[in-house]
Amino acid sequence: MDLQAIVDEVWNELAERRGAGQVADYIPALARVDPARFGIALATPDGALHCAGDARDPFSIQSISKVFVLALALGRHGPKLFERVGREPSGDPFNSIVQLERDQGIPRNPFINAGAIVTTDHLIDDRPVEQAIAELLALLRKMARDEGIMIDREVARSESIAGDRNRSLAYFMASFGVLTNKVPDILDGYFQQCALALSCRNLAEAGLFLAFDGTDPVTGEVVVSSERCRRINALMLTCGHYDNSGEFAYEVGFCGKSGVGGGILAVVPNRASIAVWSPGLGAGGTSLLGSLALKAIAGKTGWSIFG
Amino acid sequence: MDLQAIVDEVWNELAERRGAGQVADYIPALARVDPARFGIALATPDGALHCAGDARDPFSIQSISKVFVLALALGRHGPKLFERVGREPSGDPFNSIVQLERDQGIPRNPFINAGAIVTTDHLIDDRPVEQAIAELLALLRKMARDEGIMIDREVARSESIAGDRNRSLAYFMASFGVLTNKVPDILDGYFQQCALALSCRNLAEAGLFLAFDGTDPVTGEVVVSSERCRRINALMLTCGHYDNSGEFAYEVGFCGKSGVGGGILAVVPNRASIAVWSPGLGAGGTSLLGSLALKAIAGKTGWSIFG
Amino acid sequence: MDLQAIVDEVWNELAERRGAGQVADYIPALARVDPARFGIALATPDGALHCAGDARDPFSIQSISKVFVLALALGRHGPKLFERVGREPSGDPFNSIVQLERDQGIPRNPFINAGAIVTTDHLIDDRPVEQAIAELLALLRKMARDEGIMIDREVARSESIAGDRNRSLAYFMASFGVLTNKVPDILDGYFQQCALALSCRNLAEAGLFLAFDGTDPVTGEVVVSSERCRRINALMLTCGHYDNSGEFAYEVGFCGKSGVGGGILAVVPNRASIAVWSPGLGAGGTSLLGSLALKAIAGKTGWSIFG
Amino acid sequence: MDLQAIVDEVWNELAERRGAGQVADYIPALARVDPARFGIALATPDGALHCAGDARDPFSIQSISKVFVLALALGRHGPKLFERVGREPSGDPFNSIVQLERDQGIPRNPFINAGAIVTTDHLIDDRPVEQAIAELLALLRKMARDEGIMIDREVARSESIAGDRNRSLAYFMASFGVLTNKVPDILDGYFQQCALALSCRNLAEAGLFLAFDGTDPVTGEVVVSSERCRRINALMLTCGHYDNSGEFAYEVGFCGKSGVGGGILAVVPNRASIAVWSPGLGAGGTSLLGSLALKAIAGKTGWSIFG
Repeated sequence: MDLQAIVDEVWNELAERRGAGQVADYIPALARVDPARFGIALATPDGALHCAGDARDPFSIQSISKVFVLALALGRHGPKLFERVGREPSGDPFNSIVQLERDQGIPRNPFINAGAIVTTDHLIDDRPVEQAIAELLALLRKMARDEGIMIDREVARSESIAGDRNRSLAYFMASFGVLTNKVPDILDGYFQQCALALSCRNLAEAGLFLAFDGTDPVTGEVVVSSERCRRINALMLTCGHYDNSGEFAYEVGFCGKSGVGGGILAVVPNRASIAVWSPGLGAGGTSLLGSLALKAIAGKTGWSIFG
Repeated sequence: MDLQAIVDEVWNELAERRGAGQVADYIPALARVDPARFGIALATPDGALHCAGDARDPFSIQSISKVFVLALALGRHGPKLFERVGREPSGDPFNSIVQLERDQGIPRNPFINAGAIVTTDHLIDDRPVEQAIAELLALLRKMARDEGIMIDREVARSESIAGDRNRSLAYFMASFGVLTNKVPDILDGYFQQCALALSCRNLAEAGLFLAFDGTDPVTGEVVVSSERCRRINALMLTCGHYDNSGEFAYEVGFCGKSGVGGGILAVVPNRASIAVWSPGLGAGGTSLLGSLALKAIAGKTGWSIFG
Repeated sequence: MDLQAIVDEVWNELAERRGAGQVADYIPALARVDPARFGIALATPDGALHCAGDARDPFSIQSISKVFVLALALGRHGPKLFERVGREPSGDPFNSIVQLERDQGIPRNPFINAGAIVTTDHLIDDRPVEQAIAELLALLRKMARDEGIMIDREVARSESIAGDRNRSLAYFMASFGVLTNKVPDILDGYFQQCALALSCRNLAEAGLFLAFDGTDPVTGEVVVSSERCRRINALMLTCGHYDNSGEFAYEVGFCGKSGVGGGILAVVPNRASIAVWSPGLGAGGTSLLGSLALKAIAGKTGWSIFG
Repeated sequence: MDLQAIVDEVWNELAERRGAGQVADYIPALARVDPARFGIALATPDGALHCAGDARDPFSIQSISKVFVLALALGRHGPKLFERVGREPSGDPFNSIVQLERDQGIPRNPFINAGAIVTTDHLIDDRPVEQAIAELLALLRKMARDEGIMIDREVARSESIAGDRNRSLAYFMASFGVLTNKVPDILDGYFQQCALALSCRNLAEAGLFLAFDGTDPVTGEVVVSSERCRRINALMLTCGHYDNSGEFAYEVGFCGKSGVGGGILAVVPNRASIAVWSPGLGAGGTSLLGSLALKAIAGKTGWSIFG
């Protein structure tokens, strides 16, 4: 199978639809992004990278970072983490507080905002916030073999300015005793990880361990155990796309996690990791072209995990 | 891989825990079932069946029938079906009416009760109810190569007597104009399909087409297209176990559909279909021993779809 | 105080706005009503009636009947009735099923549809439905001194045809064991009482007992005890207008109960009962002109119960 | 009517039940209060005060302050205030965030916490917080003729420490753009007004204006217009007791506002204002003995607003 040809083909087929969808505009730094950007990167275990379009340009990965934060938090705390965050799809918009009230401050899963605030709290643990963020950055830089991976400080600041809804979620959980660190510290860490800037290349390389039992097949880095890796993939499948996770599983059939910056990280167990980026979002908040690109790749490769 | 040895091993490891969990007791016919029953059947594309325990005894498959009704309803109506039922996990208990109110009478997915009432309405279409049920029975008998597969009339009657919650769901949807047939007719069909009695053997054989692109590898029967098959599997993965679908994906890693009778049908794309039965249910309403058996099989075979 | 002058003045001030608001159109019999109808009747304890406009023409009182059904059901069962229906404002639209799910099938109060289905069940008690309806009719005829008060059979039939939402509510409560009679029988009674046709004169006279400690000051008929009367008035004040009961209390300051037919019965303790009718409804489902008329009467008489 | 005799009688009848109910314990300063305290004060327009028990001892009035804040906020902003807070009973527990999500950040009424945060924001307006609090204190001191009325600084600090739920509510509303001042400033003011310490005597005198058209009959102070006064009373009746406002209206029949400190201010239009204090709360969060005392006073005086 000529993966480069498939990636090129998919990019070319969709290129004319660049600009479709709605670019997130709740912070200026996202609203300013050129809606015509479109990149694909597919990483395989032999270290090869198959790219097309704007695959080398860093973008704001936003919620995709929740996957890496979860992996590190699980590494520090193990399954005890799941006493404070659930493992079920939410059935409510991604920032819903209704579910939190019903469930006494325990978020449904680590990929809704409230859940990622909990995993960030666990990532920080008893350390200064900056030390936790430094660990996250170090992991991403190592796996992507790119020391240039950074947090976009302007985006982080904007997230904080526009962050009253997340502040509300955090104080709500705090009122139930779910959090261990102070809310402003947790949110500081949370807003920083949302503001990570990676290219499709970076992201595909950084996520490759998830397709190979928790161990990066290129660097040999063991990030999580194989059992834990399968479970992170299961969570991506069932909960990775806010309230259209079912749609993504149904249409694409890869494990995936999307961000409002227009990126999607897809994991195909035992095959590859794939990162796509196109800023225009569909109705469910997932990149419109990105979803279509992944669906097309699934079709051409026959890699759907559903047969 | 000696699949028979694996099936035997798993059965033996769990046999001493028979009786664990809570047998469904909302109708007498289910409450009376011996909680110590425990069967496993694993079907492979070569026509082989690997069984252990009570694999030949028919039990009430209950909600597992929703998978076959969905397959037939999709066959009659295609994707138009999804104008009247969603494809997202529900995030609410399986018979919740709250979600229905929020979504103007459109159920979240075909595997919650309200959604299966919609698929039953579509299966009936413009035919008499009995003709639709006859088609469903014929399909199951053919694929399981067992003309003895029947609807348990006592269970169907009991379902109807205890069926006020389902009646409420149906009239609620009717008030939004979501249903086409008359509510009592649809519920007649619905209660009948809930009362289907199959053995683990029957169920594993009847479900084998889902693991092989929609075509039964033994009989050659094309039930659904390969694309549709993948999508049914995706729905089983994200929505197949009420409000603990995430847990099942996380712990087991197979596509699956459970019923309150204690049965589970699991689908492993390109590998096998597996049916387990043990009447005691866990907190989420899925067979306790059944889930553990499938988790153990996933562990021993390495077949998890998540890597 | 010249009450006739006040009634005339209010009618004249508002007459030019006849036709404002939205006529209920969920059943043809209501949709057909001339939107320009507008009547007022004010009854005082000396037996006097002060009328204006279409005060003698019968209209469909719809939910206003819930007050009389409650009075009779309380008479049969006393406070035990409140084991099956609450006494709190609902905070949700009048036919919401969300609240019912949260509260295990117990409706918030007797004036939302679900609550009135419960009071109808209690009114029927162990009698045939027709006998219960006959008792209700007899009470209204006696207090209004009008043997011509009838149930509009066409409206009752239409209610039943359009009644799937109420059917859903009733089966939902039945599934929690809240109802004692069979759902179709209860709904038969419920749809009949919704279809009562009374004029403003009838309604003001029939409701006068509520303003005078439970005893009709004209006929001497003791309908309920004085303590029970105060409590029915309290329920009218807090729950009498679906989800705009607070607005009505705030703007008008009388105890009241409205119906989607455009009627409102207002009770002013120790002063008078007032019935208004104008088919156009405001956003909250209460008669637009009717509310304004009552507010104007409150202003001119200084009768607000709030000072 | 010998009001002093009635007050004494009611106090004596209930005195043996002192200590019943559950003292609020979410902050230490409230948890420490002697549960056997019990005071009644009834103020009439001639300036007379009829007291019994611990009527002179200051206690934490908590949510009762919401009434005075509303009166002042309405004075500053008029009905425009109601663009940011509703006038309907909530049908959810007093600190529910579910309703806020459904209604885009607009609280149901000024007497739930979220609503009082909005009125506090309006009371502050464009002033420093301390100036707004000073205005509130000055009003209470003037009407109660007691310069000793203070904010309990320890309670205010404790409220802030235990205030994450209120912080969450405030940030939630801020995320919808409902608030004008900064959240920490608004909460500073909010926690201070919760911590007002008044005796029953103080409270009855300070609330007398509500029973007399908005003008204190003793001091002549015009606090609000007569129309606005009626409306505040209507809100107290429909929304004054969290989720058991209906129960209070049903059982007592006075306008009232309760606080978790065990105080209740009751308003009887054209008759009197009554303050009761007993720290033990009933299931709905309203003072148990306080409610019974008011019910008994209503019974002996015949002052129920419902006839």
